[in-house]
Amino acid sequence: MRLPGLIDPHVHMREPGATYKEDWASGTAAAVAGGFTQILAMPNTEPPVVDGASLAHTVSLAEAKAHCDFAQFLGATAENVHQTADCADQSAGLKLYLDQTYGPLRLESLDLWKAHFLAWPKDRPLVAHAEGRSMAAAILMAALTDRPLHLAHVATREEILLVRAAKEKGLKVTCEVTPHHLFLTSADLPGGRGEVRPRLGSDEDVRALWENLAVIDCFATDHAPHTAAEKDCPDPPPGFPGLETALPLFLTAVSEGRLTLEDVVLRMSDNVRKIFKIPTQPDTWIEVDLDAKREITAEGLYSKAGWTPFEGWQTRGCVQQVVLRGETVFQHGKVLAQPGFGNRIR
Amino acid sequence: MRLPGLIDPHVHMREPGATYKEDWASGTAAAVAGGFTQILAMPNTEPPVVDGASLAHTVSLAEAKAHCDFAQFLGATAENVHQTADCADQSAGLKLYLDQTYGPLRLESLDLWKAHFLAWPKDRPLVAHAEGRSMAAAILMAALTDRPLHLAHVATREEILLVRAAKEKGLKVTCEVTPHHLFLTSADLPGGRGEVRPRLGSDEDVRALWENLAVIDCFATDHAPHTAAEKDCPDPPPGFPGLETALPLFLTAVSEGRLTLEDVVLRMSDNVRKIFKIPTQPDTWIEVDLDAKREITAEGLYSKAGWTPFEGWQTRGCVQQVVLRGETVFQHGKVLAQPGFGNRIR
Repeated sequence: MRLPGLIDPHVHMREPGATYKEDWASGTAAAVAGGFTQILAMPNTEPPVVDGASLAHTVSLAEAKAHCDFAQFLGATAENVHQTADCADQSAGLKLYLDQTYGPLRLESLDLWKAHFLAWPKDRPLVAHAEGRSMAAAILMAALTDRPLHLAHVATREEILLVRAAKEKGLKVTCEVTPHHLFLTSADLPGGRGEVRPRLGSDEDVRALWENLAVIDCFATDHAPHTAAEKDCPDPPPGFPGLETALPLFLTAVSEGRLTLEDVVLRMSDNVRKIFKIPTQPDTWIEVDLDAKREITAEGLYSKAGWTPFEGWQTRGCVQQVVLRGETVFQHGKVLAQPGFGNRIR
Repeated sequence: MRLPGLIDPHVHMREPGATYKEDWASGTAAAVAGGFTQILAMPNTEPPVVDGASLAHTVSLAEAKAHCDFAQFLGATAENVHQTADCADQSAGLKLYLDQTYGPLRLESLDLWKAHFLAWPKDRPLVAHAEGRSMAAAILMAALTDRPLHLAHVATREEILLVRAAKEKGLKVTCEVTPHHLFLTSADLPGGRGEVRPRLGSDEDVRALWENLAVIDCFATDHAPHTAAEKDCPDPPPGFPGLETALPLFLTAVSEGRLTLEDVVLRMSDNVRKIFKIPTQPDTWIEVDLDAKREITAEGLYSKAGWTPFEGWQTRGCVQQVVLRGETVFQHGKVLAQPGFGNRIR
């Protein structure tokens, strides 16, 4: 079965700054192995991507190493309202961290939110990490400033119902949900391994996400690799790897009748392309085997994380081949593209 | 100089539950002495006012003791969506505590906010204690549910600019600001005496409030009496008394040219009447002496609080006489009305 190349609008490549967790080579190899031919990378690296110079530096690292096509987000800070707007066209979009997560970026004051919303070009992607009432506040700010807003990793019942209400009111919001918020609850992963932001929800949260599938525009992995050793430390960093497990999980849901294949393609390709204005890739597709039964295991994954929150899960459906711009870049479980084969999307 | 009777849309009478702090007699005596002929009382008493029975009980206490006219707010809880809506007509309005303050009432989940907004009659007052991004979230919820929303005690630069932006966008929001947020900064009152919610702001916050006077619909005291002994304890409760000092402070600002008398009357009578749909009182007015110089001191105040955050302040302008429904209820510094003279507004 042939599907379009998948696009992940929310991944952390960890380079520059923490290449022992992931780098542009290992992260994009994981992407390709997962069926993704385009990824959008988050800016909370070390140093963070916050202006033209740090954007150019990070993109140069990516150009040398990436196995798939990519674009890089800018991160909003208290000091870079105009620096980010000035290089909007070269970025995946602007990411606003309005609640606490991994890394140095965080915007406190509503004045700052507003300044960024207003300075940022109306037609360029604007993404917020905003949980609960912060999400409601961000939606208001988008409405007040007449900007479309994409809400990262919607995770709870109250959030998805809020997005539903905002859409019903005609507000220009879109959203993504991660595989881990759709397939796991907080009871499944106790301790450091389960630390992630937004936190894993309750059964009720998970049920509400599935019941409101129509409100979910995109599936995004929020691939956020940390090593197993870090996750098992007393102060574990939040985040899960996810690029190599997402499609098998969704294809399994298809095999169980919880989703259609069209649901998956819409949310892992078509809608992502539209929302983030991503060009199509010529001669690009993936081949999936809908019947292949596998067990998820950290062994053999390309990500440097070295573990997965889905260890031992039985899946049905896998990626057999990935063709990117006419070239087979993944086959027989192996990434074949050379580092640097990936192009900058913009 | 004759002015209309003032209306305070935000006072705490502390009865039932904490009559050593204040009761309906002392609190409404303070109101009359301050030039107020109508007050709207908050529901975070002990027990709180959350349904028809507790509303009837509190109103019966008020009817026996009040020196001025009054109405009583209902407080929203996780359990009383329909109980409050059912007695909306007998209340001042519905108060939603969306951030932490004194007392047991607090609404966490956005679903609950929405349920209350939707169940509450569209034409009845809806008031939120919501600070910072909670205020933005509350404004969004009001827009999504098509309800007018009154924002209690706007206190910071980011909040008043948010209210301005919401009004400019045509959203149906109104707001009040307290005298203490207009005349004090956090530097003025260190320690327990200065504890209040929202907290006292910075010079910048105070300046922004004055610069956006046009955005401020009402002045409300948020009269929240606690005894001096409580305020000087290790865990001081938040809140200031304010009924008897508000008008002298605003008249002083008039004498200094920072406000006009029209600004004061609009925000302490006309706008409050409109927003909270309060009937006019026949043969009711106050006489003020715009030139009288006084010093604010806790001695002689009717409030049981026994202290004031404005101790020692020099004022210009005072209340000489208050006439309520044809009867002189305050003159020569004395409250003359009998307890129980005050009528229920609704």
